[in-house]
Amino acid sequence: MRGRIRGRRPDDAPVIGLDLGGTKIAAALVAPDGTVLARHSRPTPATEGAEAVLDALADTARAVRTPAATAIGVAAAGVIDPVTGTVTSATDTLRGWAGTALAAGLAARTGLPVACDNDVRAAAVTELAEPPQSEASVLLYAAVGTGVGGAVAVDGRVLHGAAGIAGHLGHLPSPEAEGLPCTCGATGHLEAIAAGPGITAHYTRMSGVPADRLETVAARAARGEPHATAAVVLGARAAGRALGGLANALGADRVVLAGGVPRIGALYLDALHAAFAAELMPPLRSLRPVPPRGGPDTAVLGAAALTSTLPLHHPDRTTGARR
Amino acid sequence: MRGRIRGRRPDDAPVIGLDLGGTKIAAALVAPDGTVLARHSRPTPATEGAEAVLDALADTARAVRTPAATAIGVAAAGVIDPVTGTVTSATDTLRGWAGTALAAGLAARTGLPVACDNDVRAAAVTELAEPPQSEASVLLYAAVGTGVGGAVAVDGRVLHGAAGIAGHLGHLPSPEAEGLPCTCGATGHLEAIAAGPGITAHYTRMSGVPADRLETVAARAARGEPHATAAVVLGARAAGRALGGLANALGADRVVLAGGVPRIGALYLDALHAAFAAELMPPLRSLRPVPPRGGPDTAVLGAAALTSTLPLHHPDRTTGARR
Repeated sequence: MRGRIRGRRPDDAPVIGLDLGGTKIAAALVAPDGTVLARHSRPTPATEGAEAVLDALADTARAVRTPAATAIGVAAAGVIDPVTGTVTSATDTLRGWAGTALAAGLAARTGLPVACDNDVRAAAVTELAEPPQSEASVLLYAAVGTGVGGAVAVDGRVLHGAAGIAGHLGHLPSPEAEGLPCTCGATGHLEAIAAGPGITAHYTRMSGVPADRLETVAARAARGEPHATAAVVLGARAAGRALGGLANALGADRVVLAGGVPRIGALYLDALHAAFAAELMPPLRSLRPVPPRGGPDTAVLGAAALTSTLPLHHPDRTTGARR
Repeated sequence: MRGRIRGRRPDDAPVIGLDLGGTKIAAALVAPDGTVLARHSRPTPATEGAEAVLDALADTARAVRTPAATAIGVAAAGVIDPVTGTVTSATDTLRGWAGTALAAGLAARTGLPVACDNDVRAAAVTELAEPPQSEASVLLYAAVGTGVGGAVAVDGRVLHGAAGIAGHLGHLPSPEAEGLPCTCGATGHLEAIAAGPGITAHYTRMSGVPADRLETVAARAARGEPHATAAVVLGARAAGRALGGLANALGADRVVLAGGVPRIGALYLDALHAAFAAELMPPLRSLRPVPPRGGPDTAVLGAAALTSTLPLHHPDRTTGARR
C-alpha cells in the first residue's frame, strides 16, 4: 500500500481543496479561516482513464499551491472509501475510475498528504462549520439531482458506513416509486421517482409526451400542464416523505435539501415541505428542510475541510514523487 | 433541577440494572464483567401514577442492592431523554408517566446516581459488547413487536437525536402501509402494517375474520390459511424492505432483528430476509439481519450498561434522600 495514514494536518496552514466532477476539476487554496486565497479550474480528461485524471488533479493542485500548503482534500464523484483512499465504485462518467487508488496516487504525484471523500459528503462538511448544538446532533443532508444522494452526520462527524456507502438516501423504498427500476438494480427506490431523470420519465409515462430534461418538465408545470405538475409534485412528495421518515428514525436536528432539483421552484418546494411535515412524529414537528448554506465555493471548501476531519494518506517516503 | 450530571461511574464496582415494563419491574445487581449477582422483580403499579412507579423502582433496586453498588441504570418504556433524565412522552400504559423526572426522582429516592434510556436502546447496548469492527461501524437494531422501534448506534454509541427520538424505525413511509393510520398520527408508516397489531388487523381486513392477537394469525398461517399467510408475509416484507433501505442510507455493518414478531416462525423470517436482500445496494449484498445476542437478562444487563455509556444524574446533595 503506497498511501499510509499518519494523522492529521496542523491547523495553522493553508490547504488545497480539489473538486473532481465529470466535466471540470476545480481547485482552491484555502486559509485556515476558510478564506479562498486562489482558484483554478480545468476540464476533466474524463475519457482518458484514471492515470490521466490523477495527473490532471495534480496539475490543478499545482496551479494554486504555495510552499506553505500542507495537505490536499479531494471531493470526487463516485463511492469513495476515505479510509483506504480508493474509489469503491463509480459510474462510467469517468472512464476506469472504479478501483482507483485516489489518495495514494495523488499523494505520490504531489508529495502532499491527501484526504478524500465523495462530493456530497464533502459538501455536507460545510454545513458543520458551526459547533453542533447538542451531544445528540444529527444532520440529514439530501442532494436531489441526477440521483438522490446525501450524507448523515452525527455529533459533527459525517458517517461513512460499510463500504463507504452511508448517505445513499435514494435507495430507500418509496411508495411513490412502486415497481419502478432503480439505477442500483433494485425496484421501487426513491431515486427512481424523485431524481431529475425520474421526474422527467414519470412525466413522459403519464403524458406520452417526450421531455429531454427536468427543466423542460418544470417549465411545462409552470405553464399549468397537469401531467408536468403531477410529476413534479410526486417527485417532491416522495422525497419529502422519505426525508421525514428518516428524520423520525434518526432524530434529525437539521435537514438540508441540496442539489439541482429543489431549485426548479416553489411548486416543488411547497409539495416537499408539506409531505415532509406530514411524516414527522410530534416531538419533531418544528423541523423544516433548509437550503444549503454554501455558495459557489462549497465544493472546494468542503474538499479542503476533509483534510481536518478525515484520515490523511501520506506519500510513500521511499517511492513517492517530490516537488 | 434536582438531578445533575457529574460524570461517569468507576468501572470496578457493581451497578443495578432496572427494567421498567407495563406489567413488571425487574432488577439485577450486575458485576463489572456482566455477571448477574442478584435478581428481583415485582409488579408495576401502572395505574397509580408516576410517584408510585418511582417508589416501586426504588424498592426493587433496594432488593438487590449491596453497599458496593455505585449507580443505577434504568431501561423504561416511552420516549426517554437521557440528557435531562425525563420521560419525553409515553403511552397510557403507565398512568401519568409522560413528563416524569425519572432520573432525578430515582436518584433522590436511592441516593445513587442514575442513568436512563428507553428499553429498546438499552437492549441495543448489549449488542455493542464487542468493540466496533471499524471506525465506520453502524449498528441498526430493529425491535418488531406491538410497535416497531429500534436503535441506531454509530462507532459503538447509541444515537439519541432530537428530543431523544432516534430509533423510531416504525415511522418511515412504507409502500405496504399506504393509507393506513399510524399510532403517531401520520398515515402509511411501517408500524401500521409490520407491528403485531398491524399484521393482525390486516388479516382481519382481508379475511373478514376476527383475530385477537398475532399468535392466532400465525397459527392460521401455519395451517395454510391464505389470508393469514398473506398478512404475515406482507408485514415481514414491509419490515425487510424498510430495514434494507435504512441499511443503504446508513451503510450498516450489522442489522439485529429483535422483538416478538420475528419469533412467530420461518414464514415470517424467510419473507423478511428475502425482502431485505432485494433492497441492498451491491456493496452491502452480504449483509443479513441476525437475531439479538441477548438471553433473558438482556433488559437488565442493557439497563446496567447505561451507567457507563450515558450521563449520570446525581442525587441533589442538599435535598436528596439517603440510605
